[in-house]
Amino acid sequence: MNNNKLKITFLGGVGEIGKNMTAFEYDNEIIVVDAGLTFPDDDLPGIDVVVPDISYLVANKDKVKAIILTHGHEDHIGGLPFVLDQIKAPIYGSRLTLALVENKMKEYPKVQYKAITVKPKNVLKIGPFAVEFIKVSHSIAGSLALCISTPVGNVIHTGDFKIDFEPIDGVMTDLQRFGELGKKGVNLLLCESTNVCRKGYSMSEKSVGRALEEIFEKHTKNRIFVATFASNIHRLQQILNLAEKFGRKVAFTGRSMINISEVGLKIGEISFDKKNLIDIDKIDKYADNELLIVTTGSQGEPMSALTRMAAGDFKGIKIGENDLIVMSSSPIPGNEKGVYNVINALYQKGADVIYDELSDVHASGHACQEEIKIMHSLCKPKFFMPIHGEYRHLRMHKQLAMDLGMDERNIILPTLGMQVELSPNGMRKSGVVTAGQRLIDGYGIGDMDSNVLRERKQLAEDGICVVIVNINNVSGNVSGDPFIITRGVVYQDEAEAFVQDAKNMIIASLKEQDLRGAEPSVIKNTIRRNVSNFIFKRTKRRPMILAIVLLD
Amino acid sequence: MNNNKLKITFLGGVGEIGKNMTAFEYDNEIIVVDAGLTFPDDDLPGIDVVVPDISYLVANKDKVKAIILTHGHEDHIGGLPFVLDQIKAPIYGSRLTLALVENKMKEYPKVQYKAITVKPKNVLKIGPFAVEFIKVSHSIAGSLALCISTPVGNVIHTGDFKIDFEPIDGVMTDLQRFGELGKKGVNLLLCESTNVCRKGYSMSEKSVGRALEEIFEKHTKNRIFVATFASNIHRLQQILNLAEKFGRKVAFTGRSMINISEVGLKIGEISFDKKNLIDIDKIDKYADNELLIVTTGSQGEPMSALTRMAAGDFKGIKIGENDLIVMSSSPIPGNEKGVYNVINALYQKGADVIYDELSDVHASGHACQEEIKIMHSLCKPKFFMPIHGEYRHLRMHKQLAMDLGMDERNIILPTLGMQVELSPNGMRKSGVVTAGQRLIDGYGIGDMDSNVLRERKQLAEDGICVVIVNINNVSGNVSGDPFIITRGVVYQDEAEAFVQDAKNMIIASLKEQDLRGAEPSVIKNTIRRNVSNFIFKRTKRRPMILAIVLLD
Repeated sequence: MNNNKLKITFLGGVGEIGKNMTAFEYDNEIIVVDAGLTFPDDDLPGIDVVVPDISYLVANKDKVKAIILTHGHEDHIGGLPFVLDQIKAPIYGSRLTLALVENKMKEYPKVQYKAITVKPKNVLKIGPFAVEFIKVSHSIAGSLALCISTPVGNVIHTGDFKIDFEPIDGVMTDLQRFGELGKKGVNLLLCESTNVCRKGYSMSEKSVGRALEEIFEKHTKNRIFVATFASNIHRLQQILNLAEKFGRKVAFTGRSMINISEVGLKIGEISFDKKNLIDIDKIDKYADNELLIVTTGSQGEPMSALTRMAAGDFKGIKIGENDLIVMSSSPIPGNEKGVYNVINALYQKGADVIYDELSDVHASGHACQEEIKIMHSLCKPKFFMPIHGEYRHLRMHKQLAMDLGMDERNIILPTLGMQVELSPNGMRKSGVVTAGQRLIDGYGIGDMDSNVLRERKQLAEDGICVVIVNINNVSGNVSGDPFIITRGVVYQDEAEAFVQDAKNMIIASLKEQDLRGAEPSVIKNTIRRNVSNFIFKRTKRRPMILAIVLLD
Repeated sequence: MNNNKLKITFLGGVGEIGKNMTAFEYDNEIIVVDAGLTFPDDDLPGIDVVVPDISYLVANKDKVKAIILTHGHEDHIGGLPFVLDQIKAPIYGSRLTLALVENKMKEYPKVQYKAITVKPKNVLKIGPFAVEFIKVSHSIAGSLALCISTPVGNVIHTGDFKIDFEPIDGVMTDLQRFGELGKKGVNLLLCESTNVCRKGYSMSEKSVGRALEEIFEKHTKNRIFVATFASNIHRLQQILNLAEKFGRKVAFTGRSMINISEVGLKIGEISFDKKNLIDIDKIDKYADNELLIVTTGSQGEPMSALTRMAAGDFKGIKIGENDLIVMSSSPIPGNEKGVYNVINALYQKGADVIYDELSDVHASGHACQEEIKIMHSLCKPKFFMPIHGEYRHLRMHKQLAMDLGMDERNIILPTLGMQVELSPNGMRKSGVVTAGQRLIDGYGIGDMDSNVLRERKQLAEDGICVVIVNINNVSGNVSGDPFIITRGVVYQDEAEAFVQDAKNMIIASLKEQDLRGAEPSVIKNTIRRNVSNFIFKRTKRRPMILAIVLLD
């Protein structure tokens, strides 16, 4: 059926950051790597999350034998509730990854699934595939790259990775194993591209710890807050170590911070003496210099703990002059304004703020150019496809591979929905399947159509005007006054005059026509057109017009 | 009246980037420095521009003797149409600044004004003030700092500046004059803060020219596009010089690029042989390697020329594999996603793209830390206030001044609306006036109230549901079916069932109540509450509900 070829289908994470998902198919068996989500842009008002369109997998659901998770970030596991709802396949991942999945799936009690824990060096046999898990460093513990052995050769999928020579858990990205596999022969490398535009090497996680330590040393009298990504377990560990060293009690706040720190402590990924953990409600019992508050909100998210503190809207915490807030993060593109708004608000309350522009309080979890070159040089693949990045990253990654001596003909830039066929000696685009965004609106599991979105956008830009006209079907005359309501169109002090003028205009314009026995839809269109032009003349706006004709 | 004190009122540009405006008042005379605008965030849907609230100036309009412009950027001159509409005072600025104002004011033919050109070293006597103009480098030509001599001493207002040791026009920021004034005595320094968080020095504009030259040298066969800020005349000059050197014809595109390049050529700020300028419609007559297209859109603005080219939506230009696009700019915070979307789209069309992450194709126009230190060290002011920045910048700038040895008591962090009184030996906050944002919506000159905005936001997030119910006033019964329209609420395939269920719910809920003679407003509220709860249960959304009760 596959003609002894491996078919790779890109369902997410190529030409975009987020909602990563790739399917590997041989004969009648499919394994899926990752099932992520992204958070929507401002041009998707009201949408909560975006997950991959998995029509292709649903159409082939009996073939899907496994969903393999490289790590526990939302852009790799966040789509699971929506995938597992339709695809029944066991999921595989590291202990932390699966603990985070379990935590997430609590919100979807109806969705059943089976989860199997794997460790670095484990090899999993699934039909024609043997999947080996390889330890990599990333901004979350328990990250794994994959070597997928197939009848057409080895395929390495790096997941997200960096090369950290001073990893917090003492176990480095397994460079030796990548080298060994490269020596044996790697037919295809799928390598992440997030930071391919950044020169040099990423900063070590440990150097963040050193920067934080200097801050703790210098600010012995302050109450200290650290905002960071809850999932960055190694960062949390370093922060907790500093709390211990400097004799501060730790209070976690923010839903994901509380959840993930609990998970981390439970499974032993975080070690900390629980007697030094206090509830956020109890911080009043301690002096400022005995406290460390670890919080969400490092991206300026509107409802997060730190944002609410900055707004003076967080019960029990009043930010003031003795507070030091460390933003141990950097703004994800698109979040800059929100982050700076929070920083400005904290400063305005008199607090001191340290953020990545001022100090090395954050390290990226993604490989920069030189690290990516190391990965290529160890694996020495025959074929290469860049993954995990916007199109500009994939392009740059292709160029980097060519600079390292790879033949352009052996590189394919994947796009969403692309299918690529790999044989021992060739790689080619073989087709395109339905793929793209599935927009999730509200709780629960359901889709959004683009019509609703278009309507919301028009409403947002120009508002709405509802016009109700009673027409006597016999005389064709307007009976009574037309009824007009606007929202988001006219300014308060002009509203009365506006409504009166609009009523007069509608009555006058309908008088000109003979409406006896006219179809309501014709009358409606007339009203809509007239009102739209009337409002445009007055406000230069085109609100949505709802015209309702009631026949007496 | 002022008790021999200088009163400084901050109407914009402090605690925010943009819409800069400061008023200096002594006895019965006010001079205003700058009148800028900002472009709205996504949280102001439908708003076109934001300008300072000038209630204070309007209340004191007879005192206003001059509006002095430091340079021609929108955040310094963009508010003029809305200010000059209410305040009759002559404006002063450099030749380029006033040429840009003239160009802008063409759109507001009803607004009359008087403009007077000034040059570096000119001194302007206005009542108790003597305003000296001092040459500074910035990302637009014709930029001026001000030394305002007052009865309470010299006040230096830096405007926006950088220290460029290799300025394109050969005239450096007048460090000597700042030093001379400092030696004589500067009572107060108002210094810009935009890049105060950046270490070291800003890059020289000339080094951008060298980076661009390398790109032209390397890409001799490509059609080259350069996107940049139209107002950066010196950047344009360098780009035009390269066109000349490499034998390329130049076509400008994008409204502001065409306008400003024309202005620059007309007043001689740009020098270029017009025979090498071609119309964008004529580019088909030339080979790719004979062409340079200089375009707007370097910020990924939705309707700009480059964005439309990237979308394949620009008449006469089809981006392809032989095209090289240079983004000679860096994304303004908040624009990142838009910029990267354009870059991705250009890559997808096969073009090559060079942007600031990849090469030194942009230099900031704002002083970095070391340059700011030079300014402080030359002026050696007694008092200091940081201006032109978000609150975090102003805070950092205060810290920098203190690090240079300034007494904290001699520094005030201005906020919007703050009034500060300066005497020869003292500076203190003396009050607060009305100040803030004036939102301009639609064309023309008019204001927006926040109610309309709130409505638009709700509409955008959750949509709207209109319910019309006929009630027989005598029987109190619902007559006929309720009429329901939703926009932005339900998905197409569920709409029919939704409307039917909602109708049944409304009829059932109203039956339970005795509505004989009930006030329509009471019935309305009942309907609104019931429908809102009904929709929330079904969609977890709270759309705006318009309930209309018609009494038979």
